[in-house]
Amino acid sequence: MKLATLRNGRPDGQLIVLSADSSRYVAAGRIAPTLQAALDDWNAHAPALAALAAQLDARAIAGQVFDPAQVLAPLPRAYQWIDGSGYLSHLERVRTLKGSKDEELQSSRPLLYQGGSDSLSAPTDAIRVTDPDLAIDFEAEVAVITGPVRMGATYAQAAAAIRLVTVCNDVSLRRLVVDDLQNGFGFFHAKPSTSFAPIVATPDSLGTAWRDNRLHLPIRIEVNGTLFGQPNAGTDMHFDFADLIVEAARTRDLAAGTIIGGGTVSNRHDETLPIKRDGIGFACIAEARTVEKLKYGRARTPFLKPGDTVRIGAMSADGVSTFGDINQRVALA
Amino acid sequence: MKLATLRNGRPDGQLIVLSADSSRYVAAGRIAPTLQAALDDWNAHAPALAALAAQLDARAIAGQVFDPAQVLAPLPRAYQWIDGSGYLSHLERVRTLKGSKDEELQSSRPLLYQGGSDSLSAPTDAIRVTDPDLAIDFEAEVAVITGPVRMGATYAQAAAAIRLVTVCNDVSLRRLVVDDLQNGFGFFHAKPSTSFAPIVATPDSLGTAWRDNRLHLPIRIEVNGTLFGQPNAGTDMHFDFADLIVEAARTRDLAAGTIIGGGTVSNRHDETLPIKRDGIGFACIAEARTVEKLKYGRARTPFLKPGDTVRIGAMSADGVSTFGDINQRVALA
Repeated sequence: MKLATLRNGRPDGQLIVLSADSSRYVAAGRIAPTLQAALDDWNAHAPALAALAAQLDARAIAGQVFDPAQVLAPLPRAYQWIDGSGYLSHLERVRTLKGSKDEELQSSRPLLYQGGSDSLSAPTDAIRVTDPDLAIDFEAEVAVITGPVRMGATYAQAAAAIRLVTVCNDVSLRRLVVDDLQNGFGFFHAKPSTSFAPIVATPDSLGTAWRDNRLHLPIRIEVNGTLFGQPNAGTDMHFDFADLIVEAARTRDLAAGTIIGGGTVSNRHDETLPIKRDGIGFACIAEARTVEKLKYGRARTPFLKPGDTVRIGAMSADGVSTFGDINQRVALA
Repeated sequence: MKLATLRNGRPDGQLIVLSADSSRYVAAGRIAPTLQAALDDWNAHAPALAALAAQLDARAIAGQVFDPAQVLAPLPRAYQWIDGSGYLSHLERVRTLKGSKDEELQSSRPLLYQGGSDSLSAPTDAIRVTDPDLAIDFEAEVAVITGPVRMGATYAQAAAAIRLVTVCNDVSLRRLVVDDLQNGFGFFHAKPSTSFAPIVATPDSLGTAWRDNRLHLPIRIEVNGTLFGQPNAGTDMHFDFADLIVEAARTRDLAAGTIIGGGTVSNRHDETLPIKRDGIGFACIAEARTVEKLKYGRARTPFLKPGDTVRIGAMSADGVSTFGDINQRVALA
């Protein structure tokens, strides 16, 4: 089952159910007006939403043409957004940039940070910044949305709490990362609004692409229309999503509608940019710059500037962007 | 105007309007079903809610008896909870405990951290921990709830966005603070659910107790029924709430319903515990222990353990707990 949130002038938008090919939709208002409402009583609502999707697929309901430009983030405001660090090679590559400590390179327990969840950006919203010189970067990630999770949840309970899967862009202002981390209180100013792909999908609807609590699809990133990276999110993910949920729930309950990011997708390889047609590349600029510094003595790839665009999508084997594309332009606020 | 959120079996509870003396209430359902709904369209809803309060005070509406044991947190789940550090003496006293850096002692810009906001505790909820030995502490704070704030807001815009005032208990697991901060990603495991007083009040309803964007009332804290501290929240607050909002909105918008904490209330004085009847004391155990270490060579005040209770309230000149009391017991989860 695939869901999305249509723009309707209200802060939480309107929940819609999509056809399996994402071409058509029907409003889910009779069942749940918003995605949060659906998540609040998922066991009751999910079967009804799935039945609606089946009717749409069988053309028992005609539905309307789905236009990804008309959606908000699946949860335009959420009660929790936690970003984890599933990919150790991302941490290894960016740690010198961040002035962060060796302790960060933990392979026994994942790092997490509490992100701002009060205004999550639509897939086509601008990346708004007050200063063009903040070293603006994207971070292409897989994210899951959970049901309620009890404090001290087991791995199996955590895995069972995964309701929906999508991709997101954890926008980062690298010039402010060092300040945030040196202050010791964690990321804050360096992490403006995270953006989300148009569509969320249940794990079962993803077939073999979802297994071992990981999304086994390449995440394709284009900057200004040119391929920047296509690392596979299922490769080199040291901590899977159930691991991240277990860690997040160590000392607290997680409410239904908690969004957990897997961290910047990162594969172990020594390639640099510009990548070849079949290359892997990177899911953020910071990693590319670190590799360039090591290879060439200086970083070549610039950070984003106003007017630049970034496109992010999880590509299926037949070349379809599974959750639709994030497609953002940088703009001065 | 005073508002609260009544327990009704739903995640967001039911918004109620209180009489000025907090003795009676009437449901606000005809105007806004929840506090978040009221905040989403405050300019339309606040006058109607105030009119209801006036009818209650004039006894044109009888209302029902208000029982603070029946409420949830004002926002039982919020889209954002940001804790600031308004009181520099708190930072100075606890920094050795936290293993944090000198850079933290900034007097030019306040520190902020992003807190978990998906499950905020009712005033009488237990402080639930999985391990009794985590150095369980309370932090008594003043908090404000804001309307929408634009990125780059001015001090005047920030001040104008303050909708409601209350007190909260930013529960801290001190044994996990060092780990969280050493990891470099900020507080996470060390900060389980924050609890809130039963009542939120508009700044204008607080009279002279609210001025200069600070709450000028002593915050009275009792541990196991014994006075622990009564520092005045209006004294030594280096950064006021408008300062904290300006800082929070430097690189991002803040959505309506954002909760901003002022940090652990802390007055500059060299007293230790147990405090005298007219003493000031402390609004968290960590500060008391630091002062004791300096004076006596070792900390005497234990952290909380299961079965211990903590009571927190902002006391008016005539001895009334303005927002009602937070009254929590520590329990193993």
